[in-house]
Amino acid sequence: MLSIPIITNSPRQITNNAFTSRNNILTLLFQLKNSMRYWLFFIVLTFSGITVGQDIKWTGIANGVWSARIGEPETLNFYSVTGVLPKTDALNAMPDTPFPVATDEIKATLIDGKTYLHFPLEKGEQIYGLGLNFKTIEQRGRIMRLHVDHYSGIDNGRTHAPVPFYISSKGYGVLINSARYIDIWVGTAVTKESKNPPEIRDRNTDPNWQANPYSDNVEILVPAKGTEIIVFGGPTMLDAVSRYNLFNGGGCLPPRWGLGFWQRTPTLYNEADVLNEAREYEAHKFPLTVIGLEPGWQSKSYPCSYEWDKTRFPDPERLIDSLGKMDIYTNLWINPYISPDSRIYKSILPYTASHTVWTGIIPDYSMPEVQKIIGEHFENNIISKGVSGFKMDENDGFDDWLWPDVALFPSGNSAEQMRQTYALMMQKLTTRLYHDKNTRTYGLIRASNAGASSFPYVIYNDYYSHRDFITALINSSFCGVLWTPEVRASGSSEEWLRRMQTVCFSPLAMINAWADGTKPWSFPEVEKQVQEIAYLRMQLIPYIYTAFADYAFYGKPPFRAMNLEPGFSTGTLSEQGILSSTENPYAKALKKEIRDQYLMGDFLLIAPLFAGETSREVVLPPGKWYDFYTGKLVGESEVIKVSPGIDKIPVFVKDGGIIPMMPAVTSLNNKKLPVEIRVYGQKENSYYLYDDDGTTFNYEKGEYTRLELKVYKNKKGKLVGKVIIPENTRLWSYSEFTFRFVSM
Amino acid sequence: MLSIPIITNSPRQITNNAFTSRNNILTLLFQLKNSMRYWLFFIVLTFSGITVGQDIKWTGIANGVWSARIGEPETLNFYSVTGVLPKTDALNAMPDTPFPVATDEIKATLIDGKTYLHFPLEKGEQIYGLGLNFKTIEQRGRIMRLHVDHYSGIDNGRTHAPVPFYISSKGYGVLINSARYIDIWVGTAVTKESKNPPEIRDRNTDPNWQANPYSDNVEILVPAKGTEIIVFGGPTMLDAVSRYNLFNGGGCLPPRWGLGFWQRTPTLYNEADVLNEAREYEAHKFPLTVIGLEPGWQSKSYPCSYEWDKTRFPDPERLIDSLGKMDIYTNLWINPYISPDSRIYKSILPYTASHTVWTGIIPDYSMPEVQKIIGEHFENNIISKGVSGFKMDENDGFDDWLWPDVALFPSGNSAEQMRQTYALMMQKLTTRLYHDKNTRTYGLIRASNAGASSFPYVIYNDYYSHRDFITALINSSFCGVLWTPEVRASGSSEEWLRRMQTVCFSPLAMINAWADGTKPWSFPEVEKQVQEIAYLRMQLIPYIYTAFADYAFYGKPPFRAMNLEPGFSTGTLSEQGILSSTENPYAKALKKEIRDQYLMGDFLLIAPLFAGETSREVVLPPGKWYDFYTGKLVGESEVIKVSPGIDKIPVFVKDGGIIPMMPAVTSLNNKKLPVEIRVYGQKENSYYLYDDDGTTFNYEKGEYTRLELKVYKNKKGKLVGKVIIPENTRLWSYSEFTFRFVSM
Repeated sequence: MLSIPIITNSPRQITNNAFTSRNNILTLLFQLKNSMRYWLFFIVLTFSGITVGQDIKWTGIANGVWSARIGEPETLNFYSVTGVLPKTDALNAMPDTPFPVATDEIKATLIDGKTYLHFPLEKGEQIYGLGLNFKTIEQRGRIMRLHVDHYSGIDNGRTHAPVPFYISSKGYGVLINSARYIDIWVGTAVTKESKNPPEIRDRNTDPNWQANPYSDNVEILVPAKGTEIIVFGGPTMLDAVSRYNLFNGGGCLPPRWGLGFWQRTPTLYNEADVLNEAREYEAHKFPLTVIGLEPGWQSKSYPCSYEWDKTRFPDPERLIDSLGKMDIYTNLWINPYISPDSRIYKSILPYTASHTVWTGIIPDYSMPEVQKIIGEHFENNIISKGVSGFKMDENDGFDDWLWPDVALFPSGNSAEQMRQTYALMMQKLTTRLYHDKNTRTYGLIRASNAGASSFPYVIYNDYYSHRDFITALINSSFCGVLWTPEVRASGSSEEWLRRMQTVCFSPLAMINAWADGTKPWSFPEVEKQVQEIAYLRMQLIPYIYTAFADYAFYGKPPFRAMNLEPGFSTGTLSEQGILSSTENPYAKALKKEIRDQYLMGDFLLIAPLFAGETSREVVLPPGKWYDFYTGKLVGESEVIKVSPGIDKIPVFVKDGGIIPMMPAVTSLNNKKLPVEIRVYGQKENSYYLYDDDGTTFNYEKGEYTRLELKVYKNKKGKLVGKVIIPENTRLWSYSEFTFRFVSM
Repeated sequence: MLSIPIITNSPRQITNNAFTSRNNILTLLFQLKNSMRYWLFFIVLTFSGITVGQDIKWTGIANGVWSARIGEPETLNFYSVTGVLPKTDALNAMPDTPFPVATDEIKATLIDGKTYLHFPLEKGEQIYGLGLNFKTIEQRGRIMRLHVDHYSGIDNGRTHAPVPFYISSKGYGVLINSARYIDIWVGTAVTKESKNPPEIRDRNTDPNWQANPYSDNVEILVPAKGTEIIVFGGPTMLDAVSRYNLFNGGGCLPPRWGLGFWQRTPTLYNEADVLNEAREYEAHKFPLTVIGLEPGWQSKSYPCSYEWDKTRFPDPERLIDSLGKMDIYTNLWINPYISPDSRIYKSILPYTASHTVWTGIIPDYSMPEVQKIIGEHFENNIISKGVSGFKMDENDGFDDWLWPDVALFPSGNSAEQMRQTYALMMQKLTTRLYHDKNTRTYGLIRASNAGASSFPYVIYNDYYSHRDFITALINSSFCGVLWTPEVRASGSSEEWLRRMQTVCFSPLAMINAWADGTKPWSFPEVEKQVQEIAYLRMQLIPYIYTAFADYAFYGKPPFRAMNLEPGFSTGTLSEQGILSSTENPYAKALKKEIRDQYLMGDFLLIAPLFAGETSREVVLPPGKWYDFYTGKLVGESEVIKVSPGIDKIPVFVKDGGIIPMMPAVTSLNNKKLPVEIRVYGQKENSYYLYDDDGTTFNYEKGEYTRLELKVYKNKKGKLVGKVIIPENTRLWSYSEFTFRFVSM
């Protein structure tokens, strides 16, 4: 174990005191890891109404991670809920870095039972994150109330994962560890005492008058008597995000089969229908690794019985087994609300909320009794039968049918706190159930929040704007969650293909046909192209799996905003608005930003096209970029225009890109496969291909390997490659390696 | 003075106790009107976490009005802010009525520093109100957070007047007297203990499964340790609304000139431009009673100086005087945010908030110092110069540029409370300034809230959907505010005319040309029709003025939702939704409602057409209805279709309608005018035409009259009319009366 230094950026000494220990992340660490030399210094802020910034004490948790307690933080927070511990070794393997913000510019005020926070913003500083937004990337200038909810078309903080974590273009991150509805004003408010006040202008006569005067701060209202704040250092934004993910226990590492192709079947399919679906995939030679059953696998849904429907599925193990023989894993849909027809109804009833949702009772997942009753039921009726994982629906809310904030939970936790963390609790339970069996799972979740990076769940929703789905994929990288732009239905074969092209470059490649019964070949005119993109997905699994290993071990998001790429210009355009009494009465400035291209792993830049488009612009970051398909140089630090035709999704590779690819298979099994290593550009470089057994947690005990795929210039100056396999290592997935220098 | 009985519907006795008196409405009444026999019984609810319904004690305030204190209501509330007192005499002149809700079905829970409220809903019961909504009338099934803000296109509680008052179709009203952001779930939540639970259905197989199960309650979260609740009895919805308005001091009575025609001039107009505008109106023979000057009257705006700009207006009194000679009143735009260039800047600085808005300081209007400094400045620089009133802009917020909720106000009131009541405080100050001079004012305000009925201000905004403007006009009648569908610009002459037709049937008939410079004759092809509708507005002033008198004396809203008309079927259609994974994944039911027709006064039904429409349906309530223009019977309790052509806005008159009309004048002065009394249908009826001096508050001392316009059958059975003038009364406005039986 490493010893962890205490870092304080406060000019004053940290004082120890006898503050009653609380169940926040620090005490949790202390209780669980007290073998570590982990000094705990709790600072109680004394205040009479107002506490100013100088009183905030920062405690170093690991290299580049600091915590401060403001007031009396509540016992329920993201880390008491998830039980997740920081990946301290990995954090301390990162370089140390100075505290990234002027401490005297951070201010906290406790008033009226609420916590007001104030953070500085510099000129030109941009803010990213604050949850799974669908239309915007940069958040400076925006006001949000972070509230778990179904996304309804406006980036106002109501979303599936309204994570109270932001990242600054100055290379640091700030997390508010409070499971409340947090209000945040990101560079909109102006204080009288501002050192950088906006210029005072007269709207009558000054054409440079602005509707939104310059603001030099982020202001936050936490509706609680205190909160923990955690700051993550850089120096780059990617460093800050990586530290945040490692603080959350590191990213999840899905089973390899989870990175194949998924099909969710119509809700009332029965055993024969499902088997037929799998056989149709075979007949069409289309990849398939997971079949997901929708509500109809249960005897009752909305509310749920969690019992197999005997008419549609008389022998679930037979079905799961048959699918297993075809190397297809089975996933089951559930929602949290329990039907009186479920056999656990009576036992769980005392541990449910005052209200019902869709007439189902609402288990209080914060209670150990609920984790036990549901855990045992899931284990006995679902997991032990061979089910590989869950799709956990409807834990995001959609106010219309969720419990109201006046609902009472038997744990005494408020409805607000339960709303913010419910999906975290469901993820925690099911993650544990599979971990206890040393079997990895990969599934879907409708909501999440801070602290969830290590949970193997991908967010999806009912919203269906293709363009906004890509923006969500970009934003997922700022908040430690995964997102799939799942494909359900399409108005045209073009849209179908464009959607399939992007879902195959996402954490979870899936058709969700619960209502429509769509198949990959539903639009025969593009069947071949759809098949090709799914094959490409399968071929890229070595690369994607390694990207996920980098997420797990180093905290690097596998799917990433362009803004996390060093030197990427935001490309934000701000235009002076035009006055209109009916359309724009304040002549507000308009903002344009790049929200339709992203990175997969370290090397690939994905630039999707949307239905109706025949060409698009792509912003290339610094360095040379190559066409993925041809290996040709396309540009360097510039905006290019591409017209790839309908068959192709534009993909570009960074100079020095090394992309390991396996054959175009339709399923995954234990057979070792050859790897073709595509090399782009002329640069010497190394890539560390990750491998393990693909399904267990033995990698946590060290049973994994990293092969160095080394590209270097030989004596003649010619680029050659070699694979360096560590001694005494085992190879699980790969049989042989061939380098292919595509840019030659 | 009347003695007011205490009414309690609780089975237990009311107990008096020594609870420290607080500044809520009851103590206010006590302090100010202790000559009245007004027993004050404060009930402190003792609770350990949860308080149940039986403990709520209801105290009768007047006939059909009850108050209950839950927990510890905050000292700042709508009535402590407005200082408004109930019109007790008028309330007690209404019939007494039993407490309208089963008291044991009303429940209050105090938990976590918040107040949870639960009210029952019966099957078929509809809920109206909850502020100035723009797209919906009925609110059952909706969830809102009531929050003063600019309306942004969604009825989610964020609006200019998010009044926490609802009216039930069962004929009662409920007001939550708390100036907080109140969350409300109107018939959406289902409790486990519900006596009327929804049927449990299986979504897999039951086609009658519903996304929104039946809910039998209204649930409310008040984020404070207590609140006062006030219940208003019926038996009709109009009774409940009238009691609510009388509780707010009765509706406002505008000066007669306020009911004429208004023009707001472009923001940089100077004295000559304004005078020229008035002369152009004369030349076009177009009515004009008020000219409103926009920001440019000031030396600085956004932030404001509240000083006349000497280059554009070298001699303000000269301008106001010149306009006065043309019988035109002057109104001035302001917003609350004060420029360093204002001469009151330094004196008011200590009484301003921690933040700035548009670089202006934010006066804490809850402080007497602010009321004094601004009051004196307005009096000396504005009112004493002859200005007739204000347009008070930007007090609604629009989060983007308002103070954040973490702003601190020197009074110690929270930013949240200030946001909810700021516009009330501005209304209170300016209302008092004019009242002190015994001069009535009439103006515009961008925000309001509960308690504002008696303030002579009309809400407007920047949103510009013509159809939604009419829905807002309808909803204004449920919450004690006035709304104008002001006309700014139009895409076509048709739209221009359609908008002018509706604004002339609203509380304030105005063109707001601040940005566009539009005039009534901006579309010459419809100039004549626009002129005709403006003349009709002027002719109807006796009728509209009487409708306002009924608002002031009896609490009846002058512009009224159809739903307040007895026997009006809501006409709401609910259709089973169609399942779609991309558009409607829960197959939610769709709702259609009548939101485009309304009543003006007791007799007139207005059914506007919108640009692009050549015909429309009109839902006629029970009783015979007549065409306003022809006097012909059009139908009775049925849906008719009308195609009035572009010239006319459909207007219908209730059977027995008596409509006093004056000549088509272009201005108002002290000259008495003849009245034509139009009689519709064949019914005997009486109408009580109100008259007073039109400009002072002497009517409060009894200096007004009501003439009975009596229509009856003579011995021959023929309908005849007579005007009964009370003895010793004075007539201010009318010279002679002629009856015209238009349906003969």
